[in-house]
Amino acid sequence: MKNLLVAQSGGPTAAINATVAGVVSCAQSSGMVDTVYGAINGIEGVLEERFVNLGETLCGSQQISLLMQTPAAALGSCRFKLKDLKKDASQFEKIIEVFRRHEIRYFIYIGGNDSMDTVDKLSAYCTQQGIDDIHVIGAPKTIDNDLVGTDHCPGFGSAAKYIAATFAELERDCHVYTTKAVTIVEVMGRNAGWLTAASALARVNGGDGPSLIYLCESVFDTERFLADVREQLQKKDSVVVAISEGIHDTQGHYISEQVQSGALDQFGHSYIAGSAKVLEELVRTRIGCKVRSIELNLMQRCAGHIASATDLNESRMLGMKACQCAIEGNSGLMASVERISDNPYRVRYMAVPVCDVSNAEKKVPMEWITPDGHDVTEEMMVYLQPLILGEPEVQYQNGIPLHLFLY
Amino acid sequence: MKNLLVAQSGGPTAAINATVAGVVSCAQSSGMVDTVYGAINGIEGVLEERFVNLGETLCGSQQISLLMQTPAAALGSCRFKLKDLKKDASQFEKIIEVFRRHEIRYFIYIGGNDSMDTVDKLSAYCTQQGIDDIHVIGAPKTIDNDLVGTDHCPGFGSAAKYIAATFAELERDCHVYTTKAVTIVEVMGRNAGWLTAASALARVNGGDGPSLIYLCESVFDTERFLADVREQLQKKDSVVVAISEGIHDTQGHYISEQVQSGALDQFGHSYIAGSAKVLEELVRTRIGCKVRSIELNLMQRCAGHIASATDLNESRMLGMKACQCAIEGNSGLMASVERISDNPYRVRYMAVPVCDVSNAEKKVPMEWITPDGHDVTEEMMVYLQPLILGEPEVQYQNGIPLHLFLY
Repeated sequence: MKNLLVAQSGGPTAAINATVAGVVSCAQSSGMVDTVYGAINGIEGVLEERFVNLGETLCGSQQISLLMQTPAAALGSCRFKLKDLKKDASQFEKIIEVFRRHEIRYFIYIGGNDSMDTVDKLSAYCTQQGIDDIHVIGAPKTIDNDLVGTDHCPGFGSAAKYIAATFAELERDCHVYTTKAVTIVEVMGRNAGWLTAASALARVNGGDGPSLIYLCESVFDTERFLADVREQLQKKDSVVVAISEGIHDTQGHYISEQVQSGALDQFGHSYIAGSAKVLEELVRTRIGCKVRSIELNLMQRCAGHIASATDLNESRMLGMKACQCAIEGNSGLMASVERISDNPYRVRYMAVPVCDVSNAEKKVPMEWITPDGHDVTEEMMVYLQPLILGEPEVQYQNGIPLHLFLY
Repeated sequence: MKNLLVAQSGGPTAAINATVAGVVSCAQSSGMVDTVYGAINGIEGVLEERFVNLGETLCGSQQISLLMQTPAAALGSCRFKLKDLKKDASQFEKIIEVFRRHEIRYFIYIGGNDSMDTVDKLSAYCTQQGIDDIHVIGAPKTIDNDLVGTDHCPGFGSAAKYIAATFAELERDCHVYTTKAVTIVEVMGRNAGWLTAASALARVNGGDGPSLIYLCESVFDTERFLADVREQLQKKDSVVVAISEGIHDTQGHYISEQVQSGALDQFGHSYIAGSAKVLEELVRTRIGCKVRSIELNLMQRCAGHIASATDLNESRMLGMKACQCAIEGNSGLMASVERISDNPYRVRYMAVPVCDVSNAEKKVPMEWITPDGHDVTEEMMVYLQPLILGEPEVQYQNGIPLHLFLY
């Protein structure tokens, strides 16, 4: 028996289940895999042998379609780093023991940097132990788009599409009054500003989009920010600002931390506020106009109802690629996307050594931020535009999208 | 010449432009109207004679379709209450002067309670002055669903659909980890809990939906809330809570105010936090588990990309009804929806005296809240379900929905 096990890890996205769909389809069509299992809650579920038989659950194209449109990890997730192999091999021994018991020959792990670290360590352990019949492959996933070795990451395109559409809608909403007003919208990303940059895509159909965009790659200067806002308020009534969650000052302190230190509520607890909330208070005090802050919060990573068809399709293809790599006898690789051209948009699917990916981080190049520090360049727009294209046909029932429940 | 003027007022919704589309279509097809004007920024724009010729802008079904899918008031809005007629008639005189100059015989004002107050006062002024050739009619609009005289309000169904779909997605997202966690989601509504109730629709396809739902019609008891959350945490890892923005204690003080009094940030300003943020801090201190708060904020009223087809259609029909009422020579009425049956869902369009609507407020009946105070009843579900049905075919371009810009 040659069985395959797939698991999901890290923060959920709207496209991570499309990768599972790709893995299952490839395994089933290959004729090389007997049973496809899914582990519940990532590597934790592997250690605890919590498996579902995906071949039985995902029988037919309707189930696969539903899985594709279901946001967040349908197999559950975990935040779990394997111990250092040199210090403690017990977790690795346990995993191989579980694999042997269930005749798992192929293991596909879908996730971000930390998950690729797991793939790296586990395949290194197999090599070290001379285990050559178990193949461990990674498939990328993160809305943050910060993995190296791939042009972009599955999940990012759908989050970017949600952000672009939402900024376009917010701009319409904020435009209706004649009162001078500032709206500060916080987008996820502590170290990489890709998602915040996607707010610029709100302009692609002639809308104003955000007036100011601040990514976390630049140092954030509050005085400069206030001057920028004042300048925009001279030109228009409604100023919409996009900021990364992780904007920070010259010392590297997050802007969001600036309130935590001082503020206490009536119970005497220190207050945890987001960057946008801190800037809202700053604009209120220093400029004095109407101001509101908005966090796109979890909605930006789970809005399956407005996923990018390009993203879902690529996510599925990467699942297929990862499965194929494993079946071909590889280990320690991550499936990845290489962009061949922007327009027409063409990509090819590759595999890169996972050790180059794990624990690295791809930030926005500084030359893709405009010299004034509050917008993105045309190169960024060219990079982003194809990733949000296409609308999948979402199945609704009783007025809301249908989701598939695997456990 | 008999011209028609339409204007929008109050908070934007995803369906308010469908009502403009209905007014324009009816006016054009009636053969009774020469030119259809739109006033920019509601009654303020009337006073300042800022008009657009909608007959020229909205020529053809493609423009009407685009207007239907554009969220927020395409003609702009205002928050402007006319002065008391008994004290100062100058604004009324000015409006009639503007109407005469542009040969306006029909004026349709789309909005909520305050806008209906404007319709009421203006039609009363006309009656008092013996002006019988100017007809002033209201068309309802509010995501809050708090207008009397109508089964429900245009804009509510689309906001409810967004909320239902978003809670279903958030529930999927929060479900992936095995850590005990509480997610508190704040929904708009200071005095009426209809929108918060719509979170229960996340359950219609078998999903868990929110574990606890607190509407602003009930007194909110923080100790009871903590006990409810603790009880839910015994049963499941992820507890999602829906609360109205306007939840308040026995003295009528908003929960959101409880932090404003005490908290100061490092600049020494008092801190304005939402109800969900206050409860987040409470759960963190008193229960100590992982906790997050989310505000659906402006997104819930401007998410045109997931509007309810039922809502858009009814909004358009109400615009047509309002226009028809005016052309037939009525004044001081508001177009409204009467529900004939729940299943199959059938309605008819009526007109009610606007004086019964203005300055009144329709809250959730207490018998539609479960006796334990943290959920809604089956009657509420039956009432809500038809309002979110149907998905309009949204036109996308470059990956985001197309919007129409009228000014």
